[in-house]
Order: sequence, then structure tokens, then C-alpha cells
Amino acid sequence: MRIVDLILTKRDGGDLSREEIDFFLQGHLKGEIPDHQASALLMAIFFSGLSDVEMVDWTESLLSMAPAIDLSEIPGPKFDAISTGGVGDKSSLIVAPLAAAAGVTVATVASRGLAHTGGTLDKYQSIPGFNLWLKGQEIGASLRKTGLSVIAETDEVAPATKKLAALRNATGTVECIPFVVASLLSRKLVEGIDGMVFDVKTGSGSLIKKLTDSRRLAQSLINVAKRMNKKSIAVISDMDQPLGNAIGNALEVMEAVEAMRGNGPADLVELSIEIASRVVCLAFPDRTLEAAKEQVFTLLNDGSALKKFRELLEAQGGNPQIIDSFELLPNASAEFVVSSPRAGFVSRISGEEIGQAVTLLSSLKGGPEVDAAVGIVLEHKVGERVQAGERLCTIYYNDETHLEEASQTVEDAFHIASNAPEPRPLIYEVLR
Amino acid sequence: MRIVDLILTKRDGGDLSREEIDFFLQGHLKGEIPDHQASALLMAIFFSGLSDVEMVDWTESLLSMAPAIDLSEIPGPKFDAISTGGVGDKSSLIVAPLAAAAGVTVATVASRGLAHTGGTLDKYQSIPGFNLWLKGQEIGASLRKTGLSVIAETDEVAPATKKLAALRNATGTVECIPFVVASLLSRKLVEGIDGMVFDVKTGSGSLIKKLTDSRRLAQSLINVAKRMNKKSIAVISDMDQPLGNAIGNALEVMEAVEAMRGNGPADLVELSIEIASRVVCLAFPDRTLEAAKEQVFTLLNDGSALKKFRELLEAQGGNPQIIDSFELLPNASAEFVVSSPRAGFVSRISGEEIGQAVTLLSSLKGGPEVDAAVGIVLEHKVGERVQAGERLCTIYYNDETHLEEASQTVEDAFHIASNAPEPRPLIYEVLR
Repeated sequence: MRIVDLILTKRDGGDLSREEIDFFLQGHLKGEIPDHQASALLMAIFFSGLSDVEMVDWTESLLSMAPAIDLSEIPGPKFDAISTGGVGDKSSLIVAPLAAAAGVTVATVASRGLAHTGGTLDKYQSIPGFNLWLKGQEIGASLRKTGLSVIAETDEVAPATKKLAALRNATGTVECIPFVVASLLSRKLVEGIDGMVFDVKTGSGSLIKKLTDSRRLAQSLINVAKRMNKKSIAVISDMDQPLGNAIGNALEVMEAVEAMRGNGPADLVELSIEIASRVVCLAFPDRTLEAAKEQVFTLLNDGSALKKFRELLEAQGGNPQIIDSFELLPNASAEFVVSSPRAGFVSRISGEEIGQAVTLLSSLKGGPEVDAAVGIVLEHKVGERVQAGERLCTIYYNDETHLEEASQTVEDAFHIASNAPEPRPLIYEVLR
Repeated sequence: MRIVDLILTKRDGGDLSREEIDFFLQGHLKGEIPDHQASALLMAIFFSGLSDVEMVDWTESLLSMAPAIDLSEIPGPKFDAISTGGVGDKSSLIVAPLAAAAGVTVATVASRGLAHTGGTLDKYQSIPGFNLWLKGQEIGASLRKTGLSVIAETDEVAPATKKLAALRNATGTVECIPFVVASLLSRKLVEGIDGMVFDVKTGSGSLIKKLTDSRRLAQSLINVAKRMNKKSIAVISDMDQPLGNAIGNALEVMEAVEAMRGNGPADLVELSIEIASRVVCLAFPDRTLEAAKEQVFTLLNDGSALKKFRELLEAQGGNPQIIDSFELLPNASAEFVVSSPRAGFVSRISGEEIGQAVTLLSSLKGGPEVDAAVGIVLEHKVGERVQAGERLCTIYYNDETHLEEASQTVEDAFHIASNAPEPRPLIYEVLR
């Protein structure tokens, strides 16, 4: 087998076999296939695409390189909610305990943030003591005890994905949907779950910005999941402005906890209920969506979800006292207020720019670690009326180095218009 | 400027500026742009193409890296005939002296063979003493004396082209027409000629095999030449079977000399007259094609072209006695006859396979040098009737190592059918 023949096959619109995909992914990981040939193949795939069968093979090839986690001894089907990532999207922290409180066994793999989006892994990591690096038996123990476990994706989970991601970044093939599908699924399927709800984001705060692309991604995810014998459904949700008010790891944990106390912002609560009830319907197919939503709404507001979250922290070593004492979470030492330059309506809050500002503030010198305490809390969302000089948001920071650049980026993110904007829906569509 | 932005521009169908093309070509040559980013750009261009303006910029950017040869002190316009390369294509050896005999100043840059095709440079090099590496003043002297000069393309002529060619070879972007255009023109235009006839080949023995692709290539060559203020015309000619009967460097020199004695095979003679008369018409625009063909036909058959060829050899240090004594050229020590397995018509002779067989036979161990003595002489061409056991061709070789593989390849190249094949035209079309 010669890599140049694989390149020619995709260049000319043909299909790769599972053997050829294995040859490429394993060969590239081992360094036997050089980056310049790998990148030519990636660009050819950018143009020619991958068929559903090729995406399945690509995903399974990546999965075969990762050490599998066997949850088959845990009785009953296991589910997860998988978000494609966004700014301020802490819904995973709510959906997992909420669905577990409704009786679903939820086995979650949490990912790091990519580009300007936050990662669920980073948010859980801001909770003192919380351990996402469970061994196989510990996952089983947590699942048995609470019906819920959260583990981290690690480099070990899909080593080839990481190497490919760096190459995609350097060669302009990041947004290529087949790679997004295979990379997402191979990281999320290591536990062998039986089904999942995909929360596919769309808009400036998302990695995929156009609705048509988000729709293509959602359809591909469902098609591939189906061929892999997974039950699935995809919700396309808005990620143009940040979700909720808090952006930043510890700030988002606080907001998620507040939401599980019944005090969450409207969009976050609506999305969490939508996704969690979809998970419930996948796990209990005879349940109607209306009944599931009603159940989930109750569980969110009667403390059951928060109780489940507390059990999760206890099971995985996290300090459950953070729930009642936010000062036990990382807190920033200083604040900076951004005010409205004029009166009008908030017509847009660019999720991408807000995410970039938080990335700037949280970057710690000399390492990949981030400052979990910093972030932004929005005082106004899109459609709201503001006065000149009124507070738009508060920036929480520890290090002044990037404050000026970050605050400028935040100011640029807010658009103030004289007329109220056309409202964007929170949920665009549901695909199955 | 960031290379990833150039990749994104071409990926999304945009145009690169001259500055961006310089940035890429110079940066890649210097090693500042790594191969994996260069190959992603090449593949994006494979899909998105280059506009005529981009091809001009790419060509001029490559030309600007090569040391220019200034022929402006040689009076009058200078022309060349540029072939895209084929198997057995020794027409350049005839066309240049023929057009010079008709009064055209011909300044030729000879290239090495690529893949299975032979190169004019290699053919001239088989003539003892012939020097293709003339300095600027020596070129001028040869042109003044004989109206004709032949120099070699060298690595120095376009260093970036060589590095890119190796990368294209490894990444499946060899046949990409914009690169073929820029690479060909940048190598051929170092002398600043005023116009050229392009002989664009089509068929199995050519690098470009499909007529539609050859047509696109011809049109691009003409468009780019026009924008560079060069007079040009393109002839699309058949290269499915080898041209003439001889394939192999010294054997082709012998056949070219025979053709200039009036004893050439029909297809070689027809093509040489076609191309040479087109060069004459470019140089003398008031000449009709019929008049030019008549003149050129006479010059080929009355010994004038051969006289000019002899002057060329004398001017550039080659031994002119080879013209009368072929034993002064490299000659192979052994022969192998390939016979027809059955009676019928020669329905096809795959130029690509014949070229591969000669490449096998001529490869010398331990270096890029080739054995100029070896080759194949066809006894029958497509359309001719053969008996079972009748000689199809003779293989001339020195080293037995690859003989079996080469003879097998030659046998595979010949197709014998019970019916006469549909004839292919020698000249498909002329574009200007």
C-alpha cells in the first residue's frame, strides 16, 4: 500500500477502504507517513469529503487505537449528551445529573475546549479534588453508585486524533466536517455507550458557524452513529451569543449550580431541559417528549438534579461543599466593568470574541494550564434595552497583562443598535 | 503574512496576489515554509485551480529566482518550439535546425525526461562532446553564427521548481495543470524569447493523457504566454503510441538525422513539418501556413536542416562526424527481439509502457545518469498487419538485469487485434 495512491483515490473522488484508513492513521501516528503526505490527503478529503461508510471506518480506526473501557458489566443501556462546543456552554454540567436523576445511566467523556470554546473537562477540573481520570473499575463503581460518571478524554484516548488535529490546524482543514465527526465520535465512544443526544451548535461562538454546515454535521453524526448501532438524535441550537451569563470555568460551575437550584438564566435552563429530556426519551422509548420535559423540569427545580450532582462530586473525589460555598472554587482577585457606550438595544454579542477574551485572560504563562478563576459575567443579553453607561458585563481577572486587549475584544463583541434585533431561535431544529 | 491564510484563500476559491505567491515560493525554497503546509496549498490549488493572472505571477515568481540570460543584444526576435514531452519524441532535434534553416532565430532550452517520457536534453547529451551548458556569451556566439542554440535547463534555472516537483510527486499533484504551465514556462522562458509554438501531447505516452486535459493545458499555456507578451500558438498532437520508430537517446538522434536526410518515419516527419512551419509563421507573420510548410518540406529534404544541425554540433562542441558514422554514438552491445504472439493488426502500442521499458533498461546503478545507448526500435506501428511470430520490435540493451521485466512490459504494450483499429489523428487541433 502506498500513501500516494490513497491521496490519488480521494483526489479523484473515490472511497478509501477500512484497511487503507488503518494504514494511513496508524502509519501517520507512528511517523511512517510524513506530514506532507498526510496534509495532502487531508486537503483532498476537505474537497472530496468522506462517505458515511468511510466516516464509520475512520471513527472505528481511531477507536481501535485507544484503550477501550468495557462497561458491559454495568446493567442496562448507557447514554450521553454530546455538545460540539460553544462559549458559556455549561449545559453538560446540568444535563448529566438531570438525566441521571430521571433514571438514565449517564457515562460522559468530557473534552477540553478547542479554540475560543470552553471545554466541559476544564469546567469539572476547576472543582477542587474532582478526579476525571478514573480507571475502568472506578468508572463502574461511580456508575453503580450514582448512575453517573464523568471521565476526561486524554491523549491516550485517541492519540492519532491529537496529532491530526495539530496538522489540521496548520493546513486549513480544521472545519472539515468528516474530521469533526470522526474526531468527536472517536473521543466520545471509548466507553461503548448505547446512544447519545448530539447538541450541534451554530453561530459565531461555535466552531461551525453556518446553519447549513451545522445541519450537515448533525446529519453526518446521526448517520455514522446509526451505522455504528447507536441510538441518536441531534438538536441544532444557537451559539451566536454565549449561553447563559457566565463564561469562564469556575464561573460556569457556579452558574450551573444556580440553575440546578432553579435560578438559572432562561436560555441555559431551556436548552438543558431540551437536551436532558431527549436523553430520557432515547433511554425510555415509550416516554413522550412532553412527559419527559415535565419530569425533567420538576427534577431541575425540586433539587433532585443538584442532589445527583452532589453525589457525582462525592463519588469522584470533588469537594461537595463548593455547592453551598462558591468561595471554595477558584475566584478572581479583580474586576473590570464594561459599560455601554450609548443607549439602545443589544443587537449582537459575538460569542467568538467573548470566548477569545476569556482565552486571553485565562492563559497562564509557560504552560497549557488555564486560570480557572477568570471569566466574564454578562449583565445583558441580545434583545435587551440598555442605557448609555449602563454595565454590559463584568470581567473577572487575576493578571493584568492581557486585560486591555481582552476588554477591547469584549467591547467589540457587544453591538448596540437603535432598534431591537430580530430574535434568533434557541433551538433551530431536531434531526434523527 | 501567514501560509495558513494562503491555504485558506485557495481552499475557499480565492486568488493569491503576486506578493503571496512570492512569499510561498521563496519561503518554501528557503525551508521557512514546511512541506506539510506547502502540500496542503498544492492540493487546494489542485481543486481550486489558478487563474490566468495567478499562473502568470507564479511563472514570473519562479523566473525571478533564476539567473536570467539576456539575449537582447542578439538582433531580431527569438523563438522556440516547446513540447510537453512524450515517448520517442525527437521532433525537437529536427524542428530547431529546420526552423533555423528557414531563417528563424531559435533559442532552445532543453529539458530532462520526466517519468516515462524522454527529454531533449538527454538526447543531445548522447552526442559526444556536445555542450548544453553554455554561458551567456557562448549562447550569443552560437546564435550569431548559426541562428540556433540549445542550452540545458539546470537546477539553477529554477531551483524552486525542482523542490516543488519532488513534493508534487509525493502528494498526488503532478498532473495539476497550473503547475505544469508555470513549471514549463519558467524553465523555458529564462532566455527571454519572443514567442513559441507549444506542442501539447495527448495520450498514454504523454504526461497528460486525456484530450480534454491537453486542451485545457494548451489553452492555459497560450493565455499565460499572451499575458506575458509572447506570441504563441499550440498544436495538440497524438502521443498514444511512440512518435517515430526509435525510443532511446542515441537511437533517437540517429532517427532524427535520418529524418533530416529525407528518410524519416511518416508521423515524425509530418509532426516536425507542422511544428517547424508554425514557428516560421510566428516569426514571419506575413507568411501563409501553406508557403511555410512548402519551404520547410524542401529544407528538410534538400539537406538544409541537416546542414544546420551539423553547424549546431560544431558550434557547441559536439562531434559532427556522428551524422555520417552512427557508430560514434553510444551503441548497445546486445539485442532482444519481441515477436507477435499471433496474426492480426497492431491495434495499440502503449506509449507509457514502451517508455517505462526504456527507463528500466537505461537506469544505471548508483546514479541519475542513464545509459544513452539502449532503447527500442519498433518494426510495426498501430494499424499495420502482422503475422504470428513476426518481429514487432527490437530491444537494444547492455545490462541484462532488467531485460526480462522490460521485454514483458514491451509485450504488454503491444495489442494485437483481429480487426484494424480506428485511426487516431496525428494533429488533433490548433489553438491560438
